[in-house]
Amino acid sequence: MAGFDIKEYLKEKKEHVDRALEGILHGEGEFPQNLHKAMRYSVFAGGKRIRPVLLIASAESVGGSMKSVTNVACAVELIHTYSLIHDDLPSMDNDDLRRGKPTNHKVFGEAAAILAGDALLTLAFDILAQGNKDNAGNALTVIHEIAKAAGSTGMVGGQAVDIESEGRECSLPLLEYIHIHKTGALIRASVRAGAILSSASSQQLDALTRYGKAVGLAFQIADDILDVDGSQESTGKTVGGDAKKKKATYPRVMGINESKMRAKELIDIAMDSIEGFDNRAEALRRIAGYIVERNR
Amino acid sequence: MAGFDIKEYLKEKKEHVDRALEGILHGEGEFPQNLHKAMRYSVFAGGKRIRPVLLIASAESVGGSMKSVTNVACAVELIHTYSLIHDDLPSMDNDDLRRGKPTNHKVFGEAAAILAGDALLTLAFDILAQGNKDNAGNALTVIHEIAKAAGSTGMVGGQAVDIESEGRECSLPLLEYIHIHKTGALIRASVRAGAILSSASSQQLDALTRYGKAVGLAFQIADDILDVDGSQESTGKTVGGDAKKKKATYPRVMGINESKMRAKELIDIAMDSIEGFDNRAEALRRIAGYIVERNR
Repeated sequence: MAGFDIKEYLKEKKEHVDRALEGILHGEGEFPQNLHKAMRYSVFAGGKRIRPVLLIASAESVGGSMKSVTNVACAVELIHTYSLIHDDLPSMDNDDLRRGKPTNHKVFGEAAAILAGDALLTLAFDILAQGNKDNAGNALTVIHEIAKAAGSTGMVGGQAVDIESEGRECSLPLLEYIHIHKTGALIRASVRAGAILSSASSQQLDALTRYGKAVGLAFQIADDILDVDGSQESTGKTVGGDAKKKKATYPRVMGINESKMRAKELIDIAMDSIEGFDNRAEALRRIAGYIVERNR
Repeated sequence: MAGFDIKEYLKEKKEHVDRALEGILHGEGEFPQNLHKAMRYSVFAGGKRIRPVLLIASAESVGGSMKSVTNVACAVELIHTYSLIHDDLPSMDNDDLRRGKPTNHKVFGEAAAILAGDALLTLAFDILAQGNKDNAGNALTVIHEIAKAAGSTGMVGGQAVDIESEGRECSLPLLEYIHIHKTGALIRASVRAGAILSSASSQQLDALTRYGKAVGLAFQIADDILDVDGSQESTGKTVGGDAKKKKATYPRVMGINESKMRAKELIDIAMDSIEGFDNRAEALRRIAGYIVERNR
């Protein structure tokens, strides 16, 4: 599709999501101030908003509107943000730097960081519950979808296995488990949620589910590659941090070239999944490409 | 009401809730096993299930059935359990003992304890979303109610202020803020949720809200008193632990006798609130009395 500017699209949607998040989060002046400051600090630390944008693009690909899915898109970003705060904690990945800034516990202390994460996760479900009352059944389906993706057999499960596998030999199946759950599950759920809320047909939903699954895994492989190949300036993280902590990554398990090939292969799968979609899926197609080409 | 045995009632409901929780939680053998073990450890560590029982009793007081609110009652207990795991962490209250057993992080380590808490909170909302599809609007209202009570202007907010106030002079208004939010909010929400799900009239809901608010604060004051007066054998906690940590408590701020009077006063308020209710509110009346008379 000529004339489609993916960078402009991503920027526009990010700004829209940022404005909506501004309206959702409590102000810094609201009691307890320190807690609300800690919550805002990480939410507005310069995230790319990939999950909300994918959710919106998925909705639009089947004729839904950005406006009707904005709250759900924000809820997913709140869950993603809480997971980063908790992952960075000293007892977990023990990271000092995130998106080029000191991590939450470095600024607010460990207790406040744990509580800020807890409060963001809770706020996400509060927002999800304030969804479309005209289609309350759909809203409940989406809450279930997102909670399952975020829970013990989804994102949290992936993080648990990731932590356990640190410093140990990691097989490819175990590595895939970690990536598919820790990162992939919430991305897949975002794509599905956008479709469900836009009354996608079951055929469309199946196609978008395959797309979301492939893109979710590709995203994490690309992240692993950036940890080896990227610069600290562009990633905002300590480069080589994964290797130093002996984290389970694709480059470590299958080498960097194989990893790049696997990411491209997954993007092809994502593209094929939505081949039958019309021009309204152009954003989804471009995002898939962007995911492996980005430098942060 | 003659012949009403409150101890038998509490035991019966607790057993019912325990059976339901058994069906909700993943088995210890389910991957990731360590995470699921950590989740089960704290859920089945011998809690009194006061919040679920209050929720059920509230539902029954306006003609609702236990069966129709069981899942929501379990969800509230999962949220309560997650909050205990996180509160006990070294960076928070740093407690080694809970209900007479080593705390979660003492057994599973800090990272697993944080993740088990995260997963329990997420599971709670997953269960809430699987509520009554015939009345999805009501289910959404209850999710909002509980999320608000558990979030940054509810339970998590109370814990944040509690942590900040440790070791400092604490005024009575600040102490009330902590107790009303840290403990009271979820108890009040439990009572309200039972009523909302049982289609209580707005008059009944108002009365039960007053009941829940009074009972929630009384419960925490009674807990503070037990920390001074109780034995480790009966409370399962280190007695005097609050004083050692210079926690904000009622006995510390207003003395033990004043605290006991304040708790009794609140129970009177709770009783008055539901004075117009019929025999079906007998359990709520007896629970109110039990809360200040219990020894753990």
